[in-house]
Parts: sequence; structure tokens; C-alpha cells
Amino acid sequence: MQRYFIKNNQIDHSHILLNKQDSHHVKNVMRMRVGDFVECCDETLLYLGRIVQLDPQTKIEITNQYPATGELAVQVSIAHGVVRREKTEEVMRRLVELGCYAYLPIMMKRSQVKPISDKLERWQTIIKEASEQAKRSKLMMITEPQSWKSLLTTIKDYDLCLVADAGSHPLMKDGFTLNNIANIIVVIGPEGGFDSQEIIDLQRAGGRVVSFGNHIFRTETAPLYAMSVLRYTIGEANAR
Amino acid sequence: MQRYFIKNNQIDHSHILLNKQDSHHVKNVMRMRVGDFVECCDETLLYLGRIVQLDPQTKIEITNQYPATGELAVQVSIAHGVVRREKTEEVMRRLVELGCYAYLPIMMKRSQVKPISDKLERWQTIIKEASEQAKRSKLMMITEPQSWKSLLTTIKDYDLCLVADAGSHPLMKDGFTLNNIANIIVVIGPEGGFDSQEIIDLQRAGGRVVSFGNHIFRTETAPLYAMSVLRYTIGEANAR
Repeated sequence: MQRYFIKNNQIDHSHILLNKQDSHHVKNVMRMRVGDFVECCDETLLYLGRIVQLDPQTKIEITNQYPATGELAVQVSIAHGVVRREKTEEVMRRLVELGCYAYLPIMMKRSQVKPISDKLERWQTIIKEASEQAKRSKLMMITEPQSWKSLLTTIKDYDLCLVADAGSHPLMKDGFTLNNIANIIVVIGPEGGFDSQEIIDLQRAGGRVVSFGNHIFRTETAPLYAMSVLRYTIGEANAR
Repeated sequence: MQRYFIKNNQIDHSHILLNKQDSHHVKNVMRMRVGDFVECCDETLLYLGRIVQLDPQTKIEITNQYPATGELAVQVSIAHGVVRREKTEEVMRRLVELGCYAYLPIMMKRSQVKPISDKLERWQTIIKEASEQAKRSKLMMITEPQSWKSLLTTIKDYDLCLVADAGSHPLMKDGFTLNNIANIIVVIGPEGGFDSQEIIDLQRAGGRVVSFGNHIFRTETAPLYAMSVLRYTIGEANAR
């Protein structure tokens, strides 16, 4: 069933009013009609409802509601050296499917592109749509590109910080356990990888440097590998 | 160091002659000069050599050689419902990085595109280039799109067949062990997933149906998740 993420203020007692974009999607893309059922999610509750009005905006009568569950039991954030826009968007879409909690673009020494902060709104739209298709219960968090210093100061807020580097390091499979871990951050370099000082900075901040084995991953593959492995190790997300 | 895959007939005693495309790459893309070092791999041995001639083709004097190792200890093949060309190529590139042994495009009921068999040569070039960048020791195998029947008859040749489906099935993490497993095939549907008869066919042929959790993966994300998890579980590839 088609899912739409909504904000709390779109709910009025027993009805939900979809925004203009989602109303357009219901009517013109999905070609749904009055009487059809949809799911709405406000990240706390999942509402099952019946369409009672299409114009000017879709109105849904709530028929049932459940707790919005089914996210991974451990929050995984990916901090990624800023890469080109198309790559960022593609990585974001796939990380949503894989259950990532937050994606943090970071300006690193070898980031060959300037951070484009006016893209945040576009990114949030991409995440909302990808989350609806992937049946997430929470929207992946995204931030504007952050500075290296800002990343270093936040690492202490995580129970585990893994740093993915192509050098001679312990393999990821030997690099961590999940005992008493509630949140993880994985730091991944841009094209060309980390500068050697960045690795030192991350180690001083508490990061554990690991390798993914002796094959070289492109910068847009590494987050997908790390997120896949963590999704699997955490136990995959359980069905509602 | 830059790596080039070569065929055995390019080696003449202590020298290697690169083909025209690779010679162009050495000279005009990498801008290397006589005296620079490169790696060449014929899938059995890895040769370290020094460029002694650039024109008309690059000639390399072999200075050292090692066994070509560093592949995953278990061979993982991915059979994937035929998808659009751009998606196929993107999936192929990433599967090379993740250490996949073979990629088998299969015509399934919901494959909405016709198999393009004349693309095989193009695909082999993509795989060669991706393998060189990823520092693989073996080229991933690729076949022309195969029929459903052909897939079913080959499943018995694998020690384990996993079928990835979005329905209510055991999670992948509970679906397999690697005891006495030398080769695995993972079967993944096209956009829209498997037809219900296809699931029955696969189960009869010995396939074990698993879910990746309650998030819905796009057809091009599922092979990357499966390959990542298997790479990790097999033990990642060890450095030379």
C-alpha cells in the first residue's frame, strides 16, 4: 500500500489532509480514487485510512492506527566526505532503503566539490519519497555539509565510531561488537580517501579505523557496504 | 598502483605487451612514462613491471610476480531479473567492487525490458575496467541474459541458493550458514519482484527464500545488500 509521510499538524481528529505534492501524487501519479486505502506515517504512528476527498487536496479518513515500528534497533549514522551532487543523492536514496538513521556530508581535505547548502530542501524531498517507497517509519536525518571540526566534536556522542580506510587496518569483521551499543557513526572519505592527518584526528577523537578487505571501493560504494553489514549485524529490521 | 588485466598471450617471457586500449590509457589518461611501474594480472599471476616502451603499444618488463590472490573464499553468483541497461551496468560495477564471482541476468516474468544480448562485449569492458580499479584478481563472470528454465537447471550446481523476496519469510540472517559451502547463488527479482509461480519454481529447485527485513529495497539495491552481507560473512577478502 502506498505510504505518505505527514506532519503532525496535518491530522485533525479522525482525518488527515495531505499536502499539495502528495495530493497530486495520489490523484495523478497513483490515479487513486475516493474509497482507496493509503498509509500515512508521522514517525510516531502509522495510520491506515480511506480517501474521502481528492480535490483540492486529498483528505483521508483514519480507519486504524498502529505504533510506527520496524526501524533498526541501533541507530547508524554515516558521515561522508562531500562528493558530487548526483553521487550524494544516489547514496542518500540507497541509505534510506538500508535503514540509515542520519547522513552527514562533511567537508574533507580531498572533497573536490564545494558544499551546496541550498540543496537541503531538495535532499529532504528525495529522502521523504525514498522513505515512502522503502516503507521506513522514520525519515533519515540529513544535515547541511558540516566542517571537519564540527564532525570531530560530535564523535564522542556516539557509542562507536568506525572509520573506513583502504590502508592496512583490521578488517571490519574484526573491528567491532555491538554489546551495549545504541548508536554508531561510520566515517567514510571522499574520492581519493582521507588525508593522513584526518585519520590521526579521527583516531584521537575515538574512531576505530577498519578496512573492508583488499578490494578498493569507490566512495559511493563504501557507505552502502558499511550500512548493509551493520543492518545485517544489528539483526535487520523486524516486520510490524 | 595502476592495474591492467591481460590475457596469457600478451606475455612473452619477461615482457608484457598491453593491448591498444590499455596502451592509450597508460599514455594519455594516466600520463605515465618509460620507467613508471604498473601491475598486470592474468587471473593466475600478478606481475609487477616497469614500462620500457610507450609506442605504438605499451611494453612492460616484468620485475616481479606473485600468485593472484585476495578473492573471497566462497564464490558468490548473483542471478538478477533483467533490468534497464543503466541499472544493469551500475549493479555490475558495484558487484565487481564487492567481490562477486558471477552476474547472471535472467529473463523473468516481470522483466519489463528485452534482453540486449549484443551488450555482452560492452559489459565485459565495464567489468575489466571496474576490476582494475577495484584491484580484483579475477574478472567477474558475466553471461548473456538467460531464460528462466536455464536458471532453474543450474541451481543444483550450487551448494546454497538464496532467494530474496519482500514477503513474509525468514530474515536473511536466519536463513543460512556457511558450513561446507564453496559456492552460493542469490536470486533476485526485477522491478516488481518475482511472480508467485517463480517463487514456487525456485523452492522446488532447492532455493531458500529469505527476506532482508521489512524495508522495501529497489531491485538494484538488493544485489548490493546481498553481496555486502555475504562478503562480510565469508570474511572479507584478505590482502595479498
